[in-house]
Amino acid sequence: MSVTVGELSEGEILARIVRRTGRSTSALVGPGDDAAVLRTSGDTVVTTDTLVHGPDFRLAWSSGYDLGWKAAAVNLADVAAMGAQPTALLVALAMPNDTAVELVEQLAEGLRDACDALAPGCAVVGGDLTVSNTLTIAVTAIGDLEGREPVLRSGAAPGDVVAVAGELGRSGLGLAILFDRFRDETGEPIPVDPDRLRTGERALLDAQLRPAPPLGLGTVAARSGATAMMDVSDGLALDASRMARASGVIISFDSAALGPDVHAAMTGGEDHALLAAFPDDALPPGFRAIGRVTAGAGEVMLDGEPFRGRRGWDPYTDWDAQSG
Amino acid sequence: MSVTVGELSEGEILARIVRRTGRSTSALVGPGDDAAVLRTSGDTVVTTDTLVHGPDFRLAWSSGYDLGWKAAAVNLADVAAMGAQPTALLVALAMPNDTAVELVEQLAEGLRDACDALAPGCAVVGGDLTVSNTLTIAVTAIGDLEGREPVLRSGAAPGDVVAVAGELGRSGLGLAILFDRFRDETGEPIPVDPDRLRTGERALLDAQLRPAPPLGLGTVAARSGATAMMDVSDGLALDASRMARASGVIISFDSAALGPDVHAAMTGGEDHALLAAFPDDALPPGFRAIGRVTAGAGEVMLDGEPFRGRRGWDPYTDWDAQSG
Repeated sequence: MSVTVGELSEGEILARIVRRTGRSTSALVGPGDDAAVLRTSGDTVVTTDTLVHGPDFRLAWSSGYDLGWKAAAVNLADVAAMGAQPTALLVALAMPNDTAVELVEQLAEGLRDACDALAPGCAVVGGDLTVSNTLTIAVTAIGDLEGREPVLRSGAAPGDVVAVAGELGRSGLGLAILFDRFRDETGEPIPVDPDRLRTGERALLDAQLRPAPPLGLGTVAARSGATAMMDVSDGLALDASRMARASGVIISFDSAALGPDVHAAMTGGEDHALLAAFPDDALPPGFRAIGRVTAGAGEVMLDGEPFRGRRGWDPYTDWDAQSG
Repeated sequence: MSVTVGELSEGEILARIVRRTGRSTSALVGPGDDAAVLRTSGDTVVTTDTLVHGPDFRLAWSSGYDLGWKAAAVNLADVAAMGAQPTALLVALAMPNDTAVELVEQLAEGLRDACDALAPGCAVVGGDLTVSNTLTIAVTAIGDLEGREPVLRSGAAPGDVVAVAGELGRSGLGLAILFDRFRDETGEPIPVDPDRLRTGERALLDAQLRPAPPLGLGTVAARSGATAMMDVSDGLALDASRMARASGVIISFDSAALGPDVHAAMTGGEDHALLAAFPDDALPPGFRAIGRVTAGAGEVMLDGEPFRGRRGWDPYTDWDAQSG
């Protein structure tokens, strides 16, 4: 029988986490004082995103490691999309007393490995442990602009090339596989049976459970003169419409540039690819052109037509549909 | 019938929050982009603390306004205790679909008023909304050291005066009133009946539900040469023992300086007063001497004797005792 967090003191659980989370190269003071202190060379970027058991993940599908990885990745993506260098994470972990301590340890390792892979130098510098009936991981990511201006959503201008770094639609296809094929007759999630996966599907599940967008390209894009940038978390169509509205422009995509499954690329969420606009065709390495910015009012076009259809994801209105 | 968050889109709920949270004087970019951007003049202090319905608060006792206030206060205290100026809060709010939207609005107002009262210039700059079966408020606070060194727990030295700014023990006395007098026969919390409060007890409840420590004194203490500082969140005895261990000293309190209820002052948590050590008797305004630092190894004394007895609060081991 595994040890549960309810059998350990807060200090014992913390020690097991801190031993695994690595060290931020920006941390002047790490865990153990009232707050962490980060060496800071420019303005500071801050963002928070939470994963809640139920709407955001299921333990039948996600390991503790997956959870830690994803909780880090979605926040690091928001920092990178501002053109900032991620420096630190804070992790607020609320969990039931019967949570296996191994899950917490794996979660810490997932946080560490996602930082090492996606934003080297960044690490967990602090956090909070509480008891809750619902396993909840609220991560805050901090970034340093290092003297640069932030790259906002609102700077795209007519004539710009629209480009993306990272995958589009694969995470959503992975989620569809989980919902379609790995639930029981009552709709409850069941563990993934590898024998029921076709070639290439494991990679789609990984894109959903452990997204690995090329976030180091965020600062590269900023230095290369990106006029606007954001991460694609809710689907390209919805997120691009936000950029188009914020910038007061039309963003037009070319389906030939969107890969074999254009619908998935336009509507699938949670890839956390970087979507950016650049003033000319000289894109930085890692970015590929997928469209153009033209004059007009806050609209997204695909192959010259306004894009219709399901465009995104709202956790409240979509809750019933996915809570089965 | 009140509107619930489940009936509104994420955008509609966010708009109701953002309208109420005020504006950080450090915010170059506020809510609405991938991340917020803070003007930063020194190294950055970051901390996070979570309130979970059940172990940390009860809606029978706390209004939405109280929750917002307390969630802000406990985090602002950690920033102030480093000697930093609080600049911004991020709020990750996870709530059941049947949560009344008024509660969310009141929570936003409590966050704003706590910032205005305890750390003027600081405000909510971003956050995250998710659905959860358990109402959970994870707040991250960010502070700017403005070129100063952080004041750690580890700098107290023999000969220093130990001083406090703010109340000790009153929040714990307020919690005891709630547990003793405002629960039904099954142990479930019931609303506070003002007719059952004696003179002065309302103020004790307020100390528990809406703590208002003098956090502006954090930067004052730092500029006045404080050698160590922390906020008293888990009771003076336990928190001072942490400072004593981190500094490798003995901290000795004088009961005559601890007010009428010495036991409450030593063991009551959640006042979030600032506990600091200063190299001489020239204390900054707002701090009062309560003890001395002497040579020795990580111990807390009261009137010359090692302090024994219940010294603190662990959310895991204490959960059963208070979840009734």
